[in-house]
Amino acid sequence: MGITKEEVNSYYQKAGIVLTDEEVDQIQLMDYGLGKERKVGLQLFVYVNTDRYCSKELVLFPGQTCPEHRHPPVDGQEGKQETFRCRYGKVYLYVEGEKTPLPKVLPPQEDREHYTVWHEIELEPGGQYTIPPNTKHWFQAGEEGAVVTEMSSTSTDKHDIFTDPRI
Amino acid sequence: MGITKEEVNSYYQKAGIVLTDEEVDQIQLMDYGLGKERKVGLQLFVYVNTDRYCSKELVLFPGQTCPEHRHPPVDGQEGKQETFRCRYGKVYLYVEGEKTPLPKVLPPQEDREHYTVWHEIELEPGGQYTIPPNTKHWFQAGEEGAVVTEMSSTSTDKHDIFTDPRI
Repeated sequence: MGITKEEVNSYYQKAGIVLTDEEVDQIQLMDYGLGKERKVGLQLFVYVNTDRYCSKELVLFPGQTCPEHRHPPVDGQEGKQETFRCRYGKVYLYVEGEKTPLPKVLPPQEDREHYTVWHEIELEPGGQYTIPPNTKHWFQAGEEGAVVTEMSSTSTDKHDIFTDPRI
Repeated sequence: MGITKEEVNSYYQKAGIVLTDEEVDQIQLMDYGLGKERKVGLQLFVYVNTDRYCSKELVLFPGQTCPEHRHPPVDGQEGKQETFRCRYGKVYLYVEGEKTPLPKVLPPQEDREHYTVWHEIELEPGGQYTIPPNTKHWFQAGEEGAVVTEMSSTSTDKHDIFTDPRI
């Protein structure tokens, strides 16, 4: 069944986060063109995105994976630096670095070749991690789904580079 | 009675915001040296403050006022630009601009001369406003107090300039 903005908003409400009706309408639903959004996708609302800073509220449904990507340098500026803070549920974040021997979750089997970083960070409400610029990362929600605040430098999604060439 | 970090954390909890015990310990309690913190003061927790962006969670007690100040240019860089988003309660924000004829709240009578901007913005949960750099502003919580997320460019508190010369 397709994902609706109301369903996404219900997760914000679980985290105690209030969006106005107008803002609910601005929620973004991403399936990365893979046609399996509940498996691989991301939902978000952008609070603010100026030429100096940005903040978004991300929602992941249970077991949903945001595919591996990085934020490269843009126009001579460092790539986006971002801080994830879990507000509800649980999120498993994987970044470049020492490989976690037994990762707690796995990406979809059929896409496995497009996931190349395996240093695991597990975030529960109050858990926070800052991802350096131009660093490959992907993340997956636990069984209850997850709400994650992203605080960052300016965001230019179109410059993001995904490991999966289909995206 | 003096303000405690636990009391501040109880407001985060009202807003559904989870801080770890370690983070509760890092809560900052500011009275601006005026010795009347429940009247004029601010409590906050800094999530992150890098050389590119910053985010804090502010708490104001009922009727508490954060005194008028601005964020000037620093080392040739524009002053801090910041976005306030109300998460709980209500906050009355006053900035430079057209004077609101009948402001809903007033700063402490004895400090009135140190409050010079009167363009009123009222924020309830989901309400948001971006304050340009180097713009005078002050704010006061409503009767229930307020929790306000501050999303901004890098924060360097020591450079802030207060209208009240005692601060």
